[in-house]
Amino acid sequence: MKRGRRVVSVVGATGLVGSEITRVLFLRKFPLERINLFSSGRSPEREVTLPVGSVPVRPFSLRAVRGSDIVFLAAGGRFSGRYARRIAATGAVVIDNSSAFRMEEDVPLVVPEVNPDDAFRHKGLIANPNCSTVQMVVALAPLHREYGLRRVIVSTYQSVSGAGLKAVGELAVHSDAALRGEEMEPREFSREISFNLIPHIGLFDGAGWTREETKLMDETRKILGDSSISVIATAVRVPVFRGHSESVHAEFSRPVDPFRARSILERAPGVAVVDDPAGGLYPTPLECAGRDGVFVGRIRRDPGSPRGLCMWVVSDNLGKGAALNAVQIAEQFI
Amino acid sequence: MKRGRRVVSVVGATGLVGSEITRVLFLRKFPLERINLFSSGRSPEREVTLPVGSVPVRPFSLRAVRGSDIVFLAAGGRFSGRYARRIAATGAVVIDNSSAFRMEEDVPLVVPEVNPDDAFRHKGLIANPNCSTVQMVVALAPLHREYGLRRVIVSTYQSVSGAGLKAVGELAVHSDAALRGEEMEPREFSREISFNLIPHIGLFDGAGWTREETKLMDETRKILGDSSISVIATAVRVPVFRGHSESVHAEFSRPVDPFRARSILERAPGVAVVDDPAGGLYPTPLECAGRDGVFVGRIRRDPGSPRGLCMWVVSDNLGKGAALNAVQIAEQFI
Repeated sequence: MKRGRRVVSVVGATGLVGSEITRVLFLRKFPLERINLFSSGRSPEREVTLPVGSVPVRPFSLRAVRGSDIVFLAAGGRFSGRYARRIAATGAVVIDNSSAFRMEEDVPLVVPEVNPDDAFRHKGLIANPNCSTVQMVVALAPLHREYGLRRVIVSTYQSVSGAGLKAVGELAVHSDAALRGEEMEPREFSREISFNLIPHIGLFDGAGWTREETKLMDETRKILGDSSISVIATAVRVPVFRGHSESVHAEFSRPVDPFRARSILERAPGVAVVDDPAGGLYPTPLECAGRDGVFVGRIRRDPGSPRGLCMWVVSDNLGKGAALNAVQIAEQFI
Repeated sequence: MKRGRRVVSVVGATGLVGSEITRVLFLRKFPLERINLFSSGRSPEREVTLPVGSVPVRPFSLRAVRGSDIVFLAAGGRFSGRYARRIAATGAVVIDNSSAFRMEEDVPLVVPEVNPDDAFRHKGLIANPNCSTVQMVVALAPLHREYGLRRVIVSTYQSVSGAGLKAVGELAVHSDAALRGEEMEPREFSREISFNLIPHIGLFDGAGWTREETKLMDETRKILGDSSISVIATAVRVPVFRGHSESVHAEFSRPVDPFRARSILERAPGVAVVDDPAGGLYPTPLECAGRDGVFVGRIRRDPGSPRGLCMWVVSDNLGKGAALNAVQIAEQFI
């Protein structure tokens, strides 16, 4: 890719992730020659106010996106499946936030703190991992390097913003209704989400796993580059607006000292250790929303095995879990 | 204990668990000769309307409770620690909902579906297990009998009603405030609970475990009667009013067939299997609140081990997790 400033396009620019990508690009002073904002075509035309002034959000077309150096796709899997390779064929590097290509062999799946080199093996298309995967691998990778990860058992606590803008509205409106004793029909979720939990994110497969769970299981192995690691996930939607949390039990090849594990995590890129039980310190999604990085607390030794470690991992699913990671991938090329 | 109708006392009768115990006694037609309601002394005198008419809630005293056949204690650990054995010395069978005596060797810790016989070894005092323990052992015990439980890794999703009446009010008031953009100081919790998660229930010990987690770990072994079982818990408070949920990974001595495990659970006492992913069926706390039993869904085989099984276990923490289990213990003596 050329040096200097870049022509960048964001498709799905009015969505939760798309607008966050744009925000993060300016926040991190990405060297922009020009920024083009596109809707996937479903939204009406509108303008967005950016630090460079008012920018129109135009309906996407292959012709309009031509000439971009980097194209961020945040318009869903169907859109990406249809257009990602065709946009890459115009010469752009496509960074796709959808799950459409993540497991394709010729598409790198990149978390810059973990497998930065994979990005440079791209053939025009780089996949941004699932939000719940990103935060888990950022916390596990440094420990994997030291102790050799064998198995992960993870239970997630995922906020509604992972399901998009309408889902955020549904939690607000339904919570308000529930507090007034009213019942509403769920629309964005399979069940009522206000003051409830839904152990069902994405479609079920024949063996009873949801798509969100298989993503966590498959993507973790691909990013860590070790298909022998066993990953077992239970993904649960919780009535939180922003920030995903994960209760992680990791089992390694070698014995783990929790104090040493903590100091490895303290030095690890992208990780902030927030772990002082005596002082009442541990991460919560409300405190981590809008902040960069992956927050790790509740680090403790498995009382039944010297090779086991528990931790509580929280991150902003729209930030590091999506937009920030995507922009960090792009930054590798400047 | 004598046959026929019983004189029953409930201490802490105006609290969430105490009032639920009274409700369940009438609902299940417990053979009452008389019911005495006591406050632990902190609440003002009041009357409660029961199917037998208006009943006063009197301040507790040893003199006033004398003559009871069964005394339910739901007034907290400090109260139980002070009075439970002294009440038992009056000749009553004390069923204590607090954690004060659960791990004492001479005090049976009973879940009637799991270890009913232990109840009859009492010396005047029987402990009712922690809410999150009850539901987990009801689901695990039948599988333990068949396959030999070796290890459990559990992450909980616990509702605020487990923290009492004021905590329920705090979730309602704070959620309403948050929806209007206002911030409030947490009082009943260590952090804001509305639209947030708190991985901290009870005090921390020196190794970084919370009391709620060690209860789950220790009580499970005691109830299942096998101290070699490894239990690793992460306990998290979630913004749900009623109903606790648990993501459970269980590892057995012998290979587990998930279809057979499901049919074992379907026949198990106190268990309702709600598990049809294709039909969108799995338990959620909102649907299980106020209902009897332990609801199990998301049953699936560990993809990395034939001896591993995942499941999602939901129950009403005030019902089976507290009041219903306590009354079922009492029913063993009629």
